[in-house]
Amino acid sequence: MNQIKVLAPATVANVVCGFDCLGFAIAEPNDEMTVRVISEKEVRIINHDHYNLPTDARKNVAGAALFALLEKAGADHGFEVEIKKNIKPGSGIGSSAASAGGAVVAANRLLNDRFSPLELVDLAMDGEKIASGERHADNVAPCIYGGFTLVRSLNPIDVVALEFPPMFVTVLHPQIEIVTAVARQMLPVQVPLKDAIRQWSNVGALVAALSKGDYDLIARSLEDFLIEPVRKTLIPHFDRVKLESKCAGALGGGISGSGPSIFMLSETEEIAAKVEGAMREVYKNSGIEFFTYVSKINTGGVKFID
Amino acid sequence: MNQIKVLAPATVANVVCGFDCLGFAIAEPNDEMTVRVISEKEVRIINHDHYNLPTDARKNVAGAALFALLEKAGADHGFEVEIKKNIKPGSGIGSSAASAGGAVVAANRLLNDRFSPLELVDLAMDGEKIASGERHADNVAPCIYGGFTLVRSLNPIDVVALEFPPMFVTVLHPQIEIVTAVARQMLPVQVPLKDAIRQWSNVGALVAALSKGDYDLIARSLEDFLIEPVRKTLIPHFDRVKLESKCAGALGGGISGSGPSIFMLSETEEIAAKVEGAMREVYKNSGIEFFTYVSKINTGGVKFID
Repeated sequence: MNQIKVLAPATVANVVCGFDCLGFAIAEPNDEMTVRVISEKEVRIINHDHYNLPTDARKNVAGAALFALLEKAGADHGFEVEIKKNIKPGSGIGSSAASAGGAVVAANRLLNDRFSPLELVDLAMDGEKIASGERHADNVAPCIYGGFTLVRSLNPIDVVALEFPPMFVTVLHPQIEIVTAVARQMLPVQVPLKDAIRQWSNVGALVAALSKGDYDLIARSLEDFLIEPVRKTLIPHFDRVKLESKCAGALGGGISGSGPSIFMLSETEEIAAKVEGAMREVYKNSGIEFFTYVSKINTGGVKFID
Repeated sequence: MNQIKVLAPATVANVVCGFDCLGFAIAEPNDEMTVRVISEKEVRIINHDHYNLPTDARKNVAGAALFALLEKAGADHGFEVEIKKNIKPGSGIGSSAASAGGAVVAANRLLNDRFSPLELVDLAMDGEKIASGERHADNVAPCIYGGFTLVRSLNPIDVVALEFPPMFVTVLHPQIEIVTAVARQMLPVQVPLKDAIRQWSNVGALVAALSKGDYDLIARSLEDFLIEPVRKTLIPHFDRVKLESKCAGALGGGISGSGPSIFMLSETEEIAAKVEGAMREVYKNSGIEFFTYVSKINTGGVKFID
């Protein structure tokens, strides 16, 4: 075996109260990636899409992650990657994480699963650094593990795979650009302790609710008093989308990653479809182009395909 | 039936990272309380201990909770309570919560379990207000529910009973006084967002770890970057007690409530006993009187006895 094809899922990070730690993978869309061993000690990138992503492997997210993996493995060969991105870069649903996560999972299989999922998250963060300037695991952890994950610590890396009940996600992707650096600058440096306490009470309750499959408690816990009030100003009609989604039956949701996508969780596919309709109704006369998706939660993370 | 006798357990609040939301009940010590219906519309307090707690029912923790319950029930009678406190007031292991929680659970049984556990927590908070000046549920929630609880919200009251694996707790109670108002004034009004994120990542991980019974993850998650560094200065030899406890095998722990008691969680009773020995070794030459306890986690909360 010297070639592996994988589907790397989109992911939602910064799940409401779980800013910077809680994320999940969604069943659709996925990037399609083929990784093969080459004898040269280099990484070659072949893009099969129209996003003009870098082909210089050192500047490419998948490439940087693969270099990290080759170095850690002490390999005397290289990799070639063909990438068909179905997750639009800049959408806020983990496009770069899919590239990094898919690349290392595929390459690891070619190395007979030498590294653990946790090690792969660590390696994939080298790819994320290319995209955002910092090593973060909010998206690569759920991309690689699947389902809901909690990143307890980055240094040392500590990822918790969470239990969760069946749920469906609706994503609205407004075709506007949010510069991650700007979204980051908006964050307060200090926050009131009383608000931080409300936030961590909700994080604890949300994790318990996911574990118990308590949908009512999931809904009650999906509150963010610290980040959403600041960042939602970057996304037109955010409050309206959230309100109408909840009226349509969504459990709750918020900004996906640093936006511009908005995600909503629902108990059934039928409700998630109603939520999609409600979102489209809010945006249809906005003058802003948009896409919507309805998807299951991905389980298992990156998938191998023939 | 016009009389009920109960055991109301001691509790640990502010469980490390879970400041102001996470608590648990311990199997020992317990206050012994007997509540009986009386025809007069009043509350009578009979104390069987040497703590000189108020016998004016409006100023007594159990009394205030019972007045709240009588009012909510619209009762045309009153209650008499005999209290034998085995949980020393001011110890930081929920002495006032045991009085309030035990009183309302016993009285509720005499009213044919008219109120839900959640309503009883709400009523017991009226007792806590007498003790500390504010309605808080950190101790009354685990006292009434048993086990580990998370108070997601006070207004409206929202309590989550958590799943958890077998554990034992060791408590060191130095005989010093910590004035709750002073401990509260020490708290920062604002905290760095980055530290708050670490804190809620640990809260989420701790709740997941309790649910999974993952002792290693419990140990890794028992970190508090915000409150402990400030408040530990009130408790002599805190760092030494913590370090020696962990060396003896404790998973972790910290300040119980606002102190002065220190608690440590362990996987087995044998380890908890070793931790007790380590704590005693640190304190034996300190010149400070102290008590230590080893106990199981209480399940079921307040217990009815014949």
